[in-house]
Amino acid sequence: MVVNVAIVGVGLVGSEFICQVLATQSKKIAVVAVANSRQFLTSSSPLTDSWKEDLTGGSASKPFTLDAFTASLAASKATNPTVVLDCTSNETVAAYYPTWLEAGFHVVTPNKKAFSGDLGLYKKIKELSSQSGSPMVYHESTVGAGLPVINTLNDLVKTGDKIVKVEGIFSGTLSYIFNNFSTLDATAKPVKFSEVVSVAKDLGYTEPDPRDDLNGMDVARKVIILGRVAGLDLTQETVQVENIVPELLRNASPEEFMTKLPEFDAHFEKLNQEAIQNGQVLRYVGLVDPVHGKSSVTLARYPSSHPFASLKGSDNIIAFTTERFPNPLIIQGAGAGAAVTAFGIYTDILKIAERTQQ
Amino acid sequence: MVVNVAIVGVGLVGSEFICQVLATQSKKIAVVAVANSRQFLTSSSPLTDSWKEDLTGGSASKPFTLDAFTASLAASKATNPTVVLDCTSNETVAAYYPTWLEAGFHVVTPNKKAFSGDLGLYKKIKELSSQSGSPMVYHESTVGAGLPVINTLNDLVKTGDKIVKVEGIFSGTLSYIFNNFSTLDATAKPVKFSEVVSVAKDLGYTEPDPRDDLNGMDVARKVIILGRVAGLDLTQETVQVENIVPELLRNASPEEFMTKLPEFDAHFEKLNQEAIQNGQVLRYVGLVDPVHGKSSVTLARYPSSHPFASLKGSDNIIAFTTERFPNPLIIQGAGAGAAVTAFGIYTDILKIAERTQQ
Repeated sequence: MVVNVAIVGVGLVGSEFICQVLATQSKKIAVVAVANSRQFLTSSSPLTDSWKEDLTGGSASKPFTLDAFTASLAASKATNPTVVLDCTSNETVAAYYPTWLEAGFHVVTPNKKAFSGDLGLYKKIKELSSQSGSPMVYHESTVGAGLPVINTLNDLVKTGDKIVKVEGIFSGTLSYIFNNFSTLDATAKPVKFSEVVSVAKDLGYTEPDPRDDLNGMDVARKVIILGRVAGLDLTQETVQVENIVPELLRNASPEEFMTKLPEFDAHFEKLNQEAIQNGQVLRYVGLVDPVHGKSSVTLARYPSSHPFASLKGSDNIIAFTTERFPNPLIIQGAGAGAAVTAFGIYTDILKIAERTQQ
Repeated sequence: MVVNVAIVGVGLVGSEFICQVLATQSKKIAVVAVANSRQFLTSSSPLTDSWKEDLTGGSASKPFTLDAFTASLAASKATNPTVVLDCTSNETVAAYYPTWLEAGFHVVTPNKKAFSGDLGLYKKIKELSSQSGSPMVYHESTVGAGLPVINTLNDLVKTGDKIVKVEGIFSGTLSYIFNNFSTLDATAKPVKFSEVVSVAKDLGYTEPDPRDDLNGMDVARKVIILGRVAGLDLTQETVQVENIVPELLRNASPEEFMTKLPEFDAHFEKLNQEAIQNGQVLRYVGLVDPVHGKSSVTLARYPSSHPFASLKGSDNIIAFTTERFPNPLIIQGAGAGAAVTAFGIYTDILKIAERTQQ
């Protein structure tokens, strides 16, 4: 039986997912509904390449509310397993997951909000999806996009391995910035910290305001998600975050921040030189440490032989140290971008298709 | 509903799997039968810690044949989904998979034989397990033990990614030998090739006759498995293997091989120096290359900045280069040992449990 997919949020990632499903001519998955923040379209037959025009210009589109969208999926759910795919980064949509689960919809999403925000919401979602026969929730793409991070951690936990440490570079932006700023490659041209940030911004790697990357909150959200998968009740309050935005620039306007950042180049260069003189590099890492009960986001140093030191481009890397893997199990690769995020979503939905088709 | 597991082969890996299942007090999995090459035991209730004595000394044990063992599982299969777990490395057991699948048993195994041997057997197994509702076959632990290698490659293929190249160090033994023999770490004490092989043998890292590692056949089997998962009809004949056992020692006795290997130290040292003078190291790698239709096992060189160059101990590493991951998705970690092999088996069986319990 085909699994129907109803997508909330059809920006880059949502659109790319539809592309991948249509390109593979999947016999297991059919996209039957799409919604943006203003309107939605639900169809009794699988959507085709013209879905965008049908949504924005077609007569079948209706004004979007979560309730109206959900009500429109009743016919789908009556005949087929139906997944709501949340491709927004919206908190209100995340808060709606329990309603969907209670109504029997499965939920798949790259949206971090439900898994890194209010602990009560998270526990409610776990509870509603934890029984045999319950609707399923998968969120592989919330950390490291399509890299098999959440599933691997889940497998380690479920099979009784003891998690000693989960450590990684979970932000493509901060990976890019420090891979370029702090390197032991003697042939690399030295660059100023503000220059690297500026280039990263121009390339579209950072948030519109790079402080939204440099303050560590995005990495902290991923630490919270991984910690919770590992069985810890982490919250924003219990993760120690090293905000590397200079204090004097935290309340500046976005323009002023970029203009004044060069005044702090000496500060970052000093940190970098201290590391390099010890044969180390700087990396901005997230850490889940169940053994010592410490989880954090810090600017840390790693020796040249460490896998974090030889990271390239904007790749993510994650190392699971466990009882069975005292030398860690490491996964690395692109952790951002529409194609790889949609890949993670697609594998999650295929898993639901396999679990409901047996 | 509980998934019943019947294990053929209760050596290190099979025993460790039972340990892990009992330690996690799994509510989803029950081991109900065990067999060694001489006898088997089938029970109507889950086996407990005393399974070993019950098998070898108990009155319920019966002489082992594949047919008798299979017949004894009829009651299990009538009431519960039942997995046959093959923990042997036996070809005759592998040839029996179609019989199990046709009878409705699922199959999980770390045994490479069925997936790297006769192509007809492989295709038969695929055919019998490929339909919705068919019995399932999982073999994550055939490459890289519990590292999520096969599942990741499967996910890439199923979601329509284009595999450009799969490249890796798939042998813990050869990883250890070349990580120690060929290094750019100036502080490492230089060692002779024959010495490294001898130490690896003493540590139990090699096969009893190290030529069974150095001839590349084990790596070739893993290349064939990965190639087939990627959609290629690879066989022993179509994979080019660089056998690094010196030709003059190929027909020597095992003792003579170890005694005479030092005579070839200069040969290996020359290769090593040629690499090191170019800032490279030697690594023994397997390659699946669908684009150029070439799959091989070779002693290759990698620059210091390459992830293969900084590998440590006896870790495996595998890099998937695809259309979506032009900068490869890399997985590394322990690729041998009972605990991590059993972990891979356990995740495979949990997947069957999840797919049959929905």
